[in-house]
Parts: sequence; structure tokens; C-alpha cells
Amino acid sequence: MLPDLKAGFTLDARLHADSEQVMWLGLCELRAMNDRRWPWLILVPQRPGIEELHDLTPLDQAMLTFEANLVAQSLKRLTGCTKINSGALGNIVRQLHLHVVARSEGDPAWPGPVWGFGPREPYRPAELRSFIDNVRASL
Amino acid sequence: MLPDLKAGFTLDARLHADSEQVMWLGLCELRAMNDRRWPWLILVPQRPGIEELHDLTPLDQAMLTFEANLVAQSLKRLTGCTKINSGALGNIVRQLHLHVVARSEGDPAWPGPVWGFGPREPYRPAELRSFIDNVRASL
Repeated sequence: MLPDLKAGFTLDARLHADSEQVMWLGLCELRAMNDRRWPWLILVPQRPGIEELHDLTPLDQAMLTFEANLVAQSLKRLTGCTKINSGALGNIVRQLHLHVVARSEGDPAWPGPVWGFGPREPYRPAELRSFIDNVRASL
Repeated sequence: MLPDLKAGFTLDARLHADSEQVMWLGLCELRAMNDRRWPWLILVPQRPGIEELHDLTPLDQAMLTFEANLVAQSLKRLTGCTKINSGALGNIVRQLHLHVVARSEGDPAWPGPVWGFGPREPYRPAELRSFIDNVRASL
């Protein structure tokens, strides 16, 4: 029997509060940040206790690369953005998570980073639902 | 004969001005950001015309993952930092480059991101040389 590598994994409470589930990928849970300022997705590898990218196994790293590609390409196609910003910071939420953000010239933080930039601006529920539906359809 | 995938590659002028070469890895040129506020390395894949991670070939992505692991592990061991921050933004410099930054509680931008945070503070030349020597020795 294969070991259950996801055993013991629970999503960080802050990630849970700030974002909504989009779907399950092979390794990651894909979530949408509830911030209408930028189309912003988060990939959370379902592995307990991992904080750094380099602490994933080589196979999990390959999976994450594959899933991040898929998500970044879809988000760029969907939004027509100028640039994808990808980042794994984790200074506040230590559970490993990878941000994939659609950036466009003239967006609120352009050309600076989105992290830590002012307060989050939640979507109206129907807008968030529509964004999530569009991401799902584009994957 | 194998095609020369590096043909036509030249380092972006701003990356050249803001950082110093550490060494060549298999895919990337490894550079040290000349900013004494944080131990900060940059991997630049030697591929012309690439702006997004997902535009690299699958083999190049695997190489980049391998090299980024090596660099992040070494930097964490060398500095004893709290957290590695990795990011590929490219809003200002479009040539694909991956940041690997050692972050510690109480550093100048903690817990926010380093990108766009105040003016760069160059090292004294001997300090920069010493940082680069230490990175080389730890790889």
C-alpha cells in the first residue's frame, strides 16, 4: 500500500480565511485570493510540515512546477496580463504556498510587489464566484 | 551538433549594474545583488527572449528547480536565516530571473517583501567580495 503523503495536512487558518478553494490539482490545492485588486491564485502543496520549496521531494517539486505552469499559463490567457509574478515567501504564513499573480501596468501596486501592499479588498461574492468559475474553465 | 541554446543571450543592463557575478551553474548565471540589507542571490537562465517561468522548456525548468534548490539550501545554511523568499517578478526587468533571498525576523523589510523596498544599499567592495566567496564555498 502506498503511504498517504497527505496525512496530517491541514490548511493554514490564515490562508483559509483570505482565499477560496478553486479546485484540487494532483499535488496542490488551488485557491483564489479574495482580493479584487489583482487576479491572484495560490497553490498549496498537500504536504504536512513543509515550509521551503527545497524541502519538497524531487518528485513533488516536478509536480509543483507542472501545476504552477498550468495555472500561470491559464491566468495569463484569462486576464491578458502583462506579467505573471510568482513567489514563495512565507514570512507570515509558514505553510508552503506559491503565489501566482496576474500583473498589469497601472495596477494598484505596479511595478512593485503585491505582498504587504495595503489592505486586502474582498470581492463581492458574485464577482469572486465568477473569477473562480473562469479560472476553472480555463484550466 | 547540438544547438547552442545560449546563443544571442546577453544579461540585462540593470541586472548587470545592480549585481555581481558569483559563478556559472549549468543553466543559470548566479549573481549576488549588491544590497547589504539582505543576503540576496539571483539566478538568470541563459536563454534569450524568455520572460516567464512557464516559457522555459520542461528540461530547463527541471534544471532551474535543481539549481534554485542548491542555491537556497546553501544560502539558508550560510546565513542561518528564518525563511527563504523566492520570486520571479519581472515587472521592471523583463529578462527572466529568479530571486532567492535570505530573510530573518527584524531585517529591514520584515515581514514584507524586499522588492521595491527603499533604495539599494551597496556593500563596501571587500564585504561584497567576502559574501560572494562564502556563497561559492558553500555551494
